[in-house]
Amino acid sequence: MPTPSGHTTAVRAKTVIGTSVKDAQGEKIGVIEDIVLDKTSNAILFAVVGFGGVLGMGEKFHPIPWASLDYNEPDSAYIIHKTKDELKSAPADSIDVLTRDDGNQWRQSAHDYYGAPRNWS
Amino acid sequence: MPTPSGHTTAVRAKTVIGTSVKDAQGEKIGVIEDIVLDKTSNAILFAVVGFGGVLGMGEKFHPIPWASLDYNEPDSAYIIHKTKDELKSAPADSIDVLTRDDGNQWRQSAHDYYGAPRNWS
Repeated sequence: MPTPSGHTTAVRAKTVIGTSVKDAQGEKIGVIEDIVLDKTSNAILFAVVGFGGVLGMGEKFHPIPWASLDYNEPDSAYIIHKTKDELKSAPADSIDVLTRDDGNQWRQSAHDYYGAPRNWS
Repeated sequence: MPTPSGHTTAVRAKTVIGTSVKDAQGEKIGVIEDIVLDKTSNAILFAVVGFGGVLGMGEKFHPIPWASLDYNEPDSAYIIHKTKDELKSAPADSIDVLTRDDGNQWRQSAHDYYGAPRNWS
């Protein structure tokens, strides 16, 4: 939800990392493994979510736009508005691949897949 | 250093957290304690650096603009281009205070103190 210009709602990276992630049905499907930042701008590129074996995909990790993670207070979890089946075809790879240069390709495909607005040029 | 439009240089939050911080003289003065993010935008608000007792300030933490931290490869450390004396008068407080709403006040004072460009409206 947008806030008035200049107002911010701060959250610590350490608090986010390790938080549960649930799918559109409210089922726990993973955890926030890490957050990927751009060294040369002030931007969060994406969060990295690990789904473990839940999706039957082995050890792949999903880049998910920061704007696509809705924190649900009663659940103490982030909600991804996708089903498990949808997530099977979402962008995913090993963390090493997700975080190598040019990480922007992953940012782009994640924003496209989840329909998050691109706020970079 | 700015990169061509759209190119990003990815770094993991977990990699940044715990990295050493050195002052302008190359002396180790602290570590990156955490990174504070804005929940409602894609922005990194600032890094939080803990200087321990080095500055004689007890347990206070310093908000430092992401753009003001230069990673020095041979040192495996971030360099802050300030002296220890200068850092004693830099914005600082407990992490709880730094991360409460409105965190933007800390972002503003940190960007002003370290002369980092404001990239928000």
